[in-house]
Amino acid sequence: MKIGFIGLGKMGAPMAHNLLKAGMALTVYDVMPDAVQAMVADGAKAAKSVADVATGMDAVFTMVQTGQQVSDLCLGEDGIFKHIPKSALYIDCSSIDIVTTKSLHEEAKKIGLAMLDAPVSGGVAGAAAGSLTIMTGGKEDIFKRAEPLLQKIGKKIIYAGQAGSGQAAKICNNMLLAISMIGVSEAFVLADKLGLDQKKFFEISSNASGQCWSMTSYCPVPGILDNVPANSHYQPGFMAKMMLKDLRLAQHAAEAADSPIPLGGMSAELFELFVSQGHGDMDFSGIINMLSHKE
Amino acid sequence: MKIGFIGLGKMGAPMAHNLLKAGMALTVYDVMPDAVQAMVADGAKAAKSVADVATGMDAVFTMVQTGQQVSDLCLGEDGIFKHIPKSALYIDCSSIDIVTTKSLHEEAKKIGLAMLDAPVSGGVAGAAAGSLTIMTGGKEDIFKRAEPLLQKIGKKIIYAGQAGSGQAAKICNNMLLAISMIGVSEAFVLADKLGLDQKKFFEISSNASGQCWSMTSYCPVPGILDNVPANSHYQPGFMAKMMLKDLRLAQHAAEAADSPIPLGGMSAELFELFVSQGHGDMDFSGIINMLSHKE
Repeated sequence: MKIGFIGLGKMGAPMAHNLLKAGMALTVYDVMPDAVQAMVADGAKAAKSVADVATGMDAVFTMVQTGQQVSDLCLGEDGIFKHIPKSALYIDCSSIDIVTTKSLHEEAKKIGLAMLDAPVSGGVAGAAAGSLTIMTGGKEDIFKRAEPLLQKIGKKIIYAGQAGSGQAAKICNNMLLAISMIGVSEAFVLADKLGLDQKKFFEISSNASGQCWSMTSYCPVPGILDNVPANSHYQPGFMAKMMLKDLRLAQHAAEAADSPIPLGGMSAELFELFVSQGHGDMDFSGIINMLSHKE
Repeated sequence: MKIGFIGLGKMGAPMAHNLLKAGMALTVYDVMPDAVQAMVADGAKAAKSVADVATGMDAVFTMVQTGQQVSDLCLGEDGIFKHIPKSALYIDCSSIDIVTTKSLHEEAKKIGLAMLDAPVSGGVAGAAAGSLTIMTGGKEDIFKRAEPLLQKIGKKIIYAGQAGSGQAAKICNNMLLAISMIGVSEAFVLADKLGLDQKKFFEISSNASGQCWSMTSYCPVPGILDNVPANSHYQPGFMAKMMLKDLRLAQHAAEAADSPIPLGGMSAELFELFVSQGHGDMDFSGIINMLSHKE
């Protein structure tokens, strides 16, 4: 298959690598020449323009930072939607806002282009290992066409529903993750200050109604679980600034949908504060240190 | 064993019943004569005073509403600490504030009385079935002496640590439970408004980093899990007003310990609002309706 891939950042580069490894004929595009050169050294072809990375392809991926970037890449004069064959698949793996995603699905539909929103989770390590979870939104027959291709870069390929559902699933899940992580942090810090042993509180709460993934798979307290960022000075993992990005997306989505998110909103503010204190590159579970006054 | 039991309310009455069933010689005390009469009909002896329910006993239980009540019962002129044999056990099963619990432990220590704080979870149904979880704080040798007795009223008897640790474990766990339940509610309501199918979101998030007990054992959305209050119009279960009580205890403890609980504090405010709207007797998971504007 001939694949176009736009966006060779920390996530995009390893994802593109896995497509190469799977034997795809890969054409790549990025604004950073070094990123493109690294892929070319591994067997990819460098595109000269966005038009070039779309023309004649069986599928085109985008993996960039913002909704505006995706929109410009798709709808620009020299953009993907003008040049991609109408029989091709267009898959956006970026994590972006629902409003932009839905409007791009609308534009794709007008020109008869098969599109999926397909944000990923699993971080840089998951991207390198090809073990990402990919949440997709769009028509189910398009999902079925894309599934074998997505299996080259991810392990759990989920069909979430209609256009925008991939983004919706990701931001709702990650908002809940942020709330849980801060909640677990508050509970452990308070338990500690009340004189309760941390391992004892873990033993009690992990077997009771306080149990959650943030506690039992990603505990923010050092020395409770093996192989979590808490044990290695909160090296990511999942960076606090990326969590903040997802929480902002959740806030925008909630505003647009008139849906109250009191704890989600406060969690966004707390990560805003944590990142503003210079901890954006730290694992998101490091937010426990802000609550316990540790640096 | 001769047991004194003070506080025959919704929780205390079934707990006292289970002690009777286990063959204990039970003397009971309550300000409500009807509650006392019901226990007498089942074979308990009615005490005439607090002194009377303590004098000559092997163990005395209290199961009342507030720290002030426990304090008055223990330290009053006619109180437990004046009349209980020094060889006896004193077990407070009430959910009260840490400061009061710790000061009572101090007073008990002064007179050489073996005391445990032993708040319970599991609700009225758990009390009736004798399947409560009991979290205890105090000296470990006192815990070991009390354990066989506590097994008559509970199923999971946990030693949490030094004086006050039972209360600490309960309020930290329940604060986290409140945060998780509101977080799950926010996520499901937002997902729904974004057009994501509720069962689909459950399937995705329960297998991902959003997983928590509130979602996978007590889901607030009707029709997702069997046998949860959401399926029967949010009949409790665990009443919203009881959750509010625990959240207020968490707030007081956090203030006294200078421990920040931004999400715990906001959860208290949200349950305050929910209860003020007349939903105190509803199951606490019904708070999802406040977020989705359903009555």
